[in-house]
Amino acid sequence: LKTALLIIGDEILSGDTLDTNSHFATSLLRNNGFSVEHILAAGDRATPIRTALDFLFGQVDIVISTGGLGPTKDDITKQTLTDYFGTELVLNDNVYEQLKKWLAGRGREVNELNKQQAMVPAAAETFLNPVGTAPVFWFRKGDNKHLITLPGVPKEMRHILQEIIVPVLKERFTHESIQQLTIQTVGIGESDLAMTIEDIENKIEAANSDGEFYKLAYLPTLGPVRLQLTGKGEDENKIRHRLEEFKNEIAERVNKYVFGYGSTSFPEAIGEMLRSRNATLATAESCTGGYIAHLITSIAGSSDYYIGSVVSYANEVKVHELGVSEETIAQHGAVSEASLKQMLAGALKKFGTTYVLATTGIAGPGGGTPEKPVGSVWIGVADGNGMNCRYLRFNRKREENIHLFSIIALDMLRRRMLGIANNE
Amino acid sequence: LKTALLIIGDEILSGDTLDTNSHFATSLLRNNGFSVEHILAAGDRATPIRTALDFLFGQVDIVISTGGLGPTKDDITKQTLTDYFGTELVLNDNVYEQLKKWLAGRGREVNELNKQQAMVPAAAETFLNPVGTAPVFWFRKGDNKHLITLPGVPKEMRHILQEIIVPVLKERFTHESIQQLTIQTVGIGESDLAMTIEDIENKIEAANSDGEFYKLAYLPTLGPVRLQLTGKGEDENKIRHRLEEFKNEIAERVNKYVFGYGSTSFPEAIGEMLRSRNATLATAESCTGGYIAHLITSIAGSSDYYIGSVVSYANEVKVHELGVSEETIAQHGAVSEASLKQMLAGALKKFGTTYVLATTGIAGPGGGTPEKPVGSVWIGVADGNGMNCRYLRFNRKREENIHLFSIIALDMLRRRMLGIANNE
Repeated sequence: LKTALLIIGDEILSGDTLDTNSHFATSLLRNNGFSVEHILAAGDRATPIRTALDFLFGQVDIVISTGGLGPTKDDITKQTLTDYFGTELVLNDNVYEQLKKWLAGRGREVNELNKQQAMVPAAAETFLNPVGTAPVFWFRKGDNKHLITLPGVPKEMRHILQEIIVPVLKERFTHESIQQLTIQTVGIGESDLAMTIEDIENKIEAANSDGEFYKLAYLPTLGPVRLQLTGKGEDENKIRHRLEEFKNEIAERVNKYVFGYGSTSFPEAIGEMLRSRNATLATAESCTGGYIAHLITSIAGSSDYYIGSVVSYANEVKVHELGVSEETIAQHGAVSEASLKQMLAGALKKFGTTYVLATTGIAGPGGGTPEKPVGSVWIGVADGNGMNCRYLRFNRKREENIHLFSIIALDMLRRRMLGIANNE
Repeated sequence: LKTALLIIGDEILSGDTLDTNSHFATSLLRNNGFSVEHILAAGDRATPIRTALDFLFGQVDIVISTGGLGPTKDDITKQTLTDYFGTELVLNDNVYEQLKKWLAGRGREVNELNKQQAMVPAAAETFLNPVGTAPVFWFRKGDNKHLITLPGVPKEMRHILQEIIVPVLKERFTHESIQQLTIQTVGIGESDLAMTIEDIENKIEAANSDGEFYKLAYLPTLGPVRLQLTGKGEDENKIRHRLEEFKNEIAERVNKYVFGYGSTSFPEAIGEMLRSRNATLATAESCTGGYIAHLITSIAGSSDYYIGSVVSYANEVKVHELGVSEETIAQHGAVSEASLKQMLAGALKKFGTTYVLATTGIAGPGGGTPEKPVGSVWIGVADGNGMNCRYLRFNRKREENIHLFSIIALDMLRRRMLGIANNE
C-alpha cells in the first residue's frame, strides 16, 4: 500500500524550522509495512495545499499530512480541506468537551479562538487528540483515496501516529512486509565495494518478481560505507530468509571490511571489540589534535577501556611527554616513521595499556613541504607484541583530513585486534 | 522568482536518513531573495523522478535537486534526467580531467564505474564539482524552466549551492540588493538576548518601508547564538548604512557576549585572541575527552598558539600526568573543585603555557550519583596570575553535554583574556 506525506507550513519552506516529522513518520510507516512514495512540503495557503493533494492522490492511496491545524490565523488548512473534500464545518460535541477539559486542566477557559478547534468537517472521521487540542481528521475521496491530518507539533504528531493512526491503518489495510538489513564497512570506498560485489548485486536484482522486491543501497559517509538491503513482499518469512542469504553472501565476500551490522557506529564497534577482549587503549595524537580521543569518548561507557591521551601538538610535547628524541625530529622531522615509532613506544610505556594509537601528519592547509605535502600522515598502532605503521596521503580540507586520519587509525586498531594485515 | 527543491533518494523515503539538505537550502535561498514553494522527495527510480519534475515545473520556474548522482548502480538520476530533457550522455573532457586529478590525489585510478561520472548530458550546462566527483548540471526546458542538480552529500551540496549556484542565480535572475551582517555571541541564550535588545528589534521592524526591508534573525546553535541582520532594497549604499547602524547598536548593548562578526567560528575567534596576545594554550581534559583540543585544532594555524593536551580520562592519568593527589580524589572525588585546581596547576607546570583550561565532570548517561548527578561539571581556566573555576550542570544527552562543557571552557578563557568576570 502506497502512502505519501504532506508537510504543511511556511516555516519549513522558509528554512526557519528543520522538519523532523517526516523522518520519524517515514521510518515508523516503513517499519509497519507501508511504503512512503513521496514527501511534499507546501505553504500555509489554499492553492499550494490543493495542488499538492491533487498531485499526491495521483500517485498514492493514503496521504498523511502534518501541520497547519493550530488555532491561529495563519493556519488555514482545515477550511481548505473542508472545501477540497466538498463538506462543511460543524461543531463536534466530543471534541468540544475534550477541549474544555484540556484547557481547564491548564487553568484556562474556552475562548472564541480555540473554540474553532471543535468545528470539524462533517464528512471526515474525527479522532480525539489525547496530547493536544487539534483533533485528527480522516477524509475519504471516492473509495480508495484517504487523507489523514496530524498536528505539526512533533510531540503530538509522534504520539498520535504511533499510538492511534498506525494501528488503525494496519487493521484496515492488508499490507506488505518491508524489512531491512544493514552491513557496516570501513576501509573500502563505495565504488570499489560495488565492483567487488557486482555479481551479488545482480543476483539481488534478479530476485525481484511480481510479489517480491529486493534492493541494495550504498550509504557512504566520510570513512565508513553502509550497505543497506531492503526486501518487500507478502511472505514475511520468505523475505527475511532471502535478505539473510544476501547479507551473508556480501559479508563473506567483504569480510575484512565489515565492522558491524544494524545501526552500530564505528567508534561503538571499536569500543565493543576492546571491551570483549578486556583490552585498554590510549592515544598519542599530533595532527588529529584530540579527535580520536573525542570519537572514542563520545561513546557512553568508554571509560571502561579508554585511559587517556597525550595530544602532542608542539614538538616539545612529543619530546617531553612521549620520549621522542630531539635527534630523530632533527634528522627525520616530526612527520616521519621514526618519530611515530617513538611516539607509540612512549605512549605504551606511559599509559601501560593493551593498545596505543598515534598520528603525526600535516592536516593543512598550511605546513606542507615538497617532501611532506599537505595531507601526508603517519599513523600507527602498537601493543606488547609489536607495531604497524602506515603512510598515507589525502587531498582534502583540513577537517576532512583530520576525520579520515582518525577513522584509519581506528581501522588499524580493528585490524590489529583481528589479525588482518593493513595491505590485505 | 519561485523555486522548489527535489530531494532524490530512497534513504530519505525509508526514514534511514534525516534530510538536512532542504533546511540548509531553503534558508540560504530565502536569505538571497528566492522563495521556495515546495519541497518534494522522490525515490531513486525513473517514474517518481519524472512525475515529480512534471509537478514541480507546473508550480515554479527553478527546480534544484539534491542526491542521486553517485557512481553506483542505485543512482539512476542522471540517465533519467538525460531522457527527460531529450538529450544524450557524452564524455566531458573537463570533468574527466578533474576526476582523474581528484582520484590521483587520493592514490586511486579511474575505473569503469567512476568514469561514468565524466559522462554528462549534452544539452546541460555543466559545472565542475570542486569538493567531490559528481558534477553539477543545469538543464533548461523551454525558455523559463530550469533544473539544477546538486550532489546529495551534505558537505558537497552546501559548498556548491553557496559558492557556485546561488551567485549564478543572483547574477542571472535578481536585481535587488540583499545584504547581511552577522554578530556572533556566546554565553547568553536566545530568549535572554531577545529581551535585552527588544527595543532595537522594534526599531529594525519600524524601518521597513515600501522600498526597503530589514529583518533580525536569531540563529542559535548549541552554544553560540548568531544574530543575523538582513537588508533588501534598490539603494545598496543606504541599505548598507542602515545595517551598520543596527549592528553597532546591538553590539554595544551586548558587548560582553560578542566574540566576532561575519562567519568567524568561536574556536577561530579564540585562536585570534591568543595569537594577537602572543599567548599559548594547553588543556587538561577529563569529561570532554579531547573535544576542546579538537575544537581548537580544527582551526588552521592553531599550532601557533596551541601546545597540547593531557586527556586524563582515567584517574591514574590525573594523578601521574597532572599531579592530582590521590588523597584529593579519595576525599573530594575526581569531579570536584579541589581536583580541578590541581589539574589546572599541574597542566600549567607541565606545559608552561600562558593559559590552561581543564574540565572534570559527568557527561552521562551513566556515572551519576545523588551528590554529583549526570551533567555536573567543574570547568576552570588558569594563568600565571591565578585561576577561575565554575560548577555547572546540564540536563542533556552525552554529546551535547560534552559540547556545552567545551564551549563554556572556551568562553571562560575568552573572559579571562578580556578581564570580564564569569558572573558579569
